[in-house]
Amino acid sequence: MSEHAAASRLCFPGLCFLLQVLLILLFAVWVRYSPEGSPGPCPPPLNCSRRSQDPNFLQPRFRDVHVQVLLSFGLLVAFLSRCGPGSAAIIILITAFSIQWAILIQGMLYFSLDGKISVGAQSLVRADFCTAAVLISTGALLGRVNPVQMLLLALLEVTLCTLNEFILLSLMGVSDTGGSLTVHTFGAYFGLMVSRLLYQPHKDKRKREEQQDKGHQTGAFAVVGTIYLWIFWPSSISTTTVHHNAENWAVLNSYFSLVASTVSTFILSPLLYEESTPRLVQIQDATLAAMAVMGMAGEMLLTPFGALIAGFLVGLISSLGFRFFMPVLHSKLKIQDTCGVHNTHGLPGVLGALLGTLLTLLATADTFGYRLELVFPLVAQGSRTITDQALLQLGALPLTLLLATLGGCITGALLKINVLRCCPAALYKENPGLREVPEEGSDPSASGKEELGSSTLV
Amino acid sequence: MSEHAAASRLCFPGLCFLLQVLLILLFAVWVRYSPEGSPGPCPPPLNCSRRSQDPNFLQPRFRDVHVQVLLSFGLLVAFLSRCGPGSAAIIILITAFSIQWAILIQGMLYFSLDGKISVGAQSLVRADFCTAAVLISTGALLGRVNPVQMLLLALLEVTLCTLNEFILLSLMGVSDTGGSLTVHTFGAYFGLMVSRLLYQPHKDKRKREEQQDKGHQTGAFAVVGTIYLWIFWPSSISTTTVHHNAENWAVLNSYFSLVASTVSTFILSPLLYEESTPRLVQIQDATLAAMAVMGMAGEMLLTPFGALIAGFLVGLISSLGFRFFMPVLHSKLKIQDTCGVHNTHGLPGVLGALLGTLLTLLATADTFGYRLELVFPLVAQGSRTITDQALLQLGALPLTLLLATLGGCITGALLKINVLRCCPAALYKENPGLREVPEEGSDPSASGKEELGSSTLV
Amino acid sequence: MSEHAAASRLCFPGLCFLLQVLLILLFAVWVRYSPEGSPGPCPPPLNCSRRSQDPNFLQPRFRDVHVQVLLSFGLLVAFLSRCGPGSAAIIILITAFSIQWAILIQGMLYFSLDGKISVGAQSLVRADFCTAAVLISTGALLGRVNPVQMLLLALLEVTLCTLNEFILLSLMGVSDTGGSLTVHTFGAYFGLMVSRLLYQPHKDKRKREEQQDKGHQTGAFAVVGTIYLWIFWPSSISTTTVHHNAENWAVLNSYFSLVASTVSTFILSPLLYEESTPRLVQIQDATLAAMAVMGMAGEMLLTPFGALIAGFLVGLISSLGFRFFMPVLHSKLKIQDTCGVHNTHGLPGVLGALLGTLLTLLATADTFGYRLELVFPLVAQGSRTITDQALLQLGALPLTLLLATLGGCITGALLKINVLRCCPAALYKENPGLREVPEEGSDPSASGKEELGSSTLV
Repeated sequence: MSEHAAASRLCFPGLCFLLQVLLILLFAVWVRYSPEGSPGPCPPPLNCSRRSQDPNFLQPRFRDVHVQVLLSFGLLVAFLSRCGPGSAAIIILITAFSIQWAILIQGMLYFSLDGKISVGAQSLVRADFCTAAVLISTGALLGRVNPVQMLLLALLEVTLCTLNEFILLSLMGVSDTGGSLTVHTFGAYFGLMVSRLLYQPHKDKRKREEQQDKGHQTGAFAVVGTIYLWIFWPSSISTTTVHHNAENWAVLNSYFSLVASTVSTFILSPLLYEESTPRLVQIQDATLAAMAVMGMAGEMLLTPFGALIAGFLVGLISSLGFRFFMPVLHSKLKIQDTCGVHNTHGLPGVLGALLGTLLTLLATADTFGYRLELVFPLVAQGSRTITDQALLQLGALPLTLLLATLGGCITGALLKINVLRCCPAALYKENPGLREVPEEGSDPSASGKEELGSSTLV
Repeated sequence: MSEHAAASRLCFPGLCFLLQVLLILLFAVWVRYSPEGSPGPCPPPLNCSRRSQDPNFLQPRFRDVHVQVLLSFGLLVAFLSRCGPGSAAIIILITAFSIQWAILIQGMLYFSLDGKISVGAQSLVRADFCTAAVLISTGALLGRVNPVQMLLLALLEVTLCTLNEFILLSLMGVSDTGGSLTVHTFGAYFGLMVSRLLYQPHKDKRKREEQQDKGHQTGAFAVVGTIYLWIFWPSSISTTTVHHNAENWAVLNSYFSLVASTVSTFILSPLLYEESTPRLVQIQDATLAAMAVMGMAGEMLLTPFGALIAGFLVGLISSLGFRFFMPVLHSKLKIQDTCGVHNTHGLPGVLGALLGTLLTLLATADTFGYRLELVFPLVAQGSRTITDQALLQLGALPLTLLLATLGGCITGALLKINVLRCCPAALYKENPGLREVPEEGSDPSASGKEELGSSTLV
Repeated sequence: MSEHAAASRLCFPGLCFLLQVLLILLFAVWVRYSPEGSPGPCPPPLNCSRRSQDPNFLQPRFRDVHVQVLLSFGLLVAFLSRCGPGSAAIIILITAFSIQWAILIQGMLYFSLDGKISVGAQSLVRADFCTAAVLISTGALLGRVNPVQMLLLALLEVTLCTLNEFILLSLMGVSDTGGSLTVHTFGAYFGLMVSRLLYQPHKDKRKREEQQDKGHQTGAFAVVGTIYLWIFWPSSISTTTVHHNAENWAVLNSYFSLVASTVSTFILSPLLYEESTPRLVQIQDATLAAMAVMGMAGEMLLTPFGALIAGFLVGLISSLGFRFFMPVLHSKLKIQDTCGVHNTHGLPGVLGALLGTLLTLLATADTFGYRLELVFPLVAQGSRTITDQALLQLGALPLTLLLATLGGCITGALLKINVLRCCPAALYKENPGLREVPEEGSDPSASGKEELGSSTLV
């Protein structure tokens, strides 16, 4: 290995080391455990005896945090079904790094308390949401960026995603508990813009060929990923709502949506692909799309059949998007989308936001009852009319799209410079984790070591 | 592809589309969210302020719903260990369809409220139980029915299973919270009868050869399936009991039963199969059998060693059934049983019902204490003697067997007609999801495409 | 097969049968359900009406039991990533047997009530902790002991582990809720001592060669294992603490520790192994190490950055241990460590105990507040000074090491005798479950049958 390559090999662990030490220092200076669990002086309304602090208020959060982590890992498993276990190492690193960074950034905006960031289970939940957005962006880029670029992407996206979330939820008072806009739409369009700027035409042909047989080869991961999503995503949606009664509908609506969306894949795939049953990856994609569409509207839908219709339509749209829109995206707009995040997160997220706006318009005190206070507290308090709320919900969509595309452009431009400065192609070439599974006949010089790492399940 | 084949290819998505649209319409007309979470007028005893509706009453249900979904998916993973990921697509479709249909049918019988079906988390739990019965029947038929037949099977079985459950639980007042009769026995014997009517002798030999090496090839799925069952099944048993204290014993008894049953496989398999350790699929089967036997008796057993003995014996019986009874079933009764559901669900379910009857006879107010009210409310209220209850528990067994076999006969006969009318062999042949994994040397003309889909993990 | 081999083949199921019957008899004589759920006379402070017994006190335990079982199975999956699904059968048997035996032994020491052992969900949690220690020891020995030896190892280790736990927690009043000492340190050093006594030099060379490509081949299991650990281990730590508020920090600290530890693998592995990204097994090992170090200190750490530093350092130490200390252990001390438990459990456990001692010294009523009563009840009650507590925490470390090494020596010596008496090499040879995955070119006579069983995922 040449001297240059050796230097580049040290560049990545060095960067990891510096970032982790920096994070520890920042945590040491600013981050403290939140007063809920802290030993500080007991606030007057709480009696500090052993059992008096209501355990039921605190307890469910902790379990849900871990379910929420699963949300991120559900995405990981979902991507595994396209890219094989080789890509998992880098995604785990990105997750570990994004969570820490998101806690810091979000703490500065939300949870700061007399100059310190107070951290509790709730912070972890919010950090996980942000990590999910980063993973979605990663899904558009897998196989075409090196680890250093991934780290910088996470650094920038976490910052912008938190900013977008802060503007939407805190400043504008938009209701988006499941993250249709803040997670799915932002993550997808951010990743797509970065993908556009990193476009390399000569890698084009190879990619397309791989696309063909990927689905069949990693069926086992797709099964596991789908099961994970069915089990854990609906309940993870309920973690961000503080109010307990409104969860009811968000969970049930998500569940109905995914059931209908699953059926819709069986309708379109025989027509689109000349196969009698859909491939497992297609079912998984429909599941993801059904979840993304229920992010904002889940709390607002009053009837089960609404969720069935929404899930059914988004399942059809997502399937059509894979067949007809993804090639257009690729050939006309020069945007490569490795895992198809535009169809599973981007478009369903936008549709979810539009559905949420429509449902907000229909919300009245009669139909919502006491739930109005939970879903739209400002409307219930009388400080805002329902039309204003609907306009703000609608306005949040272009704002999110703007921030995501602008941020994606800037990030993509920075990644292009940076890759030249720090990490040459050598790093990219010797790294099995950044290639997708079926690599035959593409790059003979690199196929010795990679085959070992990436062909584990084949 | 011939015109006829093209028509048949459109038949299945068309059927899915019609059924899903029909379901959406039926949901639109009848199904509403249940008043627990609805914004309707607040019932007098409940104070409708933000926190007053006890979240602890509602909350655990939602988590358990998803655990319950897992129950169905645990079965799915369990079947994967025999049939490979190829069969998963169809099973997921059946699950998605059965849940919606079961909510409708069960809603008509149980939950109807002023002409509307009110749906809550509890409905999803009940629908999942019904879906589990359908999946058990599917386990007996995998590899020998096409998707259209599967859908019609689900349609009919959900209806009959709900009817059986309604007669047993609501009309007769039988205690069967874990579904020894309503889920395991019904599902197994229904599937076996359908299998009898669809018997095709020429497919016989091939099947037997495959049986040999199946266990070794899909060991990874068997490990994951067994772990899923160990983790989630015991707690899923507790979801149907409204009363919180009685859960205690059902969970612990199930757990002890499966531990003992696992050990029993290690005793018999070296004697039966000339291998020093059992194959993983055998351990999985013993786990399933141990759960099925505890369905009815789990609440009633007063001592841990009773659960150990029951699990131990049913583990031995299940292993012996696989070795000696399954070939007899096949050659003499002409019933093919792809996943061996008779040994893992049918026989253990019947034994569980007999054990439950025995324990009912032994129940006295002295030994049960306040639990008598929870397990046998009618006995505790004095409107029924314990002997009457035991007779009803016993009578539920032949009734379930009768309904299951009759229903299976009718369904099997209908499937036989239908396959001729709508979906010719072409559909069956081109569908990789409906074949089992090791297909070598069996059907050369169909092995081109299938190999891709079904050999993912080999 | 010779007559001798046939006899040896019957020896193992016979032993299983005898042990299980013995366990059932012991359960029948001694074990009863605990009064919390029992129908016995209602204790005066509890009103025995249907809802009066607080369900929230009982309920979470049951769910956590199953999460806790997962802890053991998480280890199982973790070992799968090194040894393939073939070894799973024996590990499941060991788990099933250890749980029953641990309930008996622990019941005798802890839960006995008027001559009977009363069993509840809490007993299952404690039994699972003990089973985890047995699985850790198993990890050091996998591939070199036969099933009979495994069973005897479990029998002896459960007894000694329970004794050690009883001395530490009940007699000395040491705070070790996550089991840094009682589970990780004890299990690792016990297993290493047994490994030392069973050392066979001629098997040495083969092992080393296999070590090379193991990581790449079973990447899929490593991904699943890592995800399991991320999701379930932090919350499983909280199951043993009765007090609800202190859980908060243990969970969050564990989580921060594992995040930092994950990053540290990405720093060291390129420097140590000439690969740009770490193999997935290395990430999994770092996760395990991060959990082991937080066992004792998790409750005591007051700030998130402390957990980040501890996790970061232990991740580095564990990676260095694999690279530099394991070969020394092997060549100088003649200790083979199949799954590297010294680096993932032993050393991190010892470091965790030292960290816990340090944090105990720093504990004051000011910094801990009301939590002092939860973590160190004896100090809070004034019956012990904080220095005494710290000395006891420190003293628990050599005591555990002494018991583990002594116990390991005795067990190893017994296993050596026993293997000669009961189970000859024939049993070992024909058993696919006891060999590790890549067996090529090592033992031609045994490779016929084994290849089928062990190469399932390759």
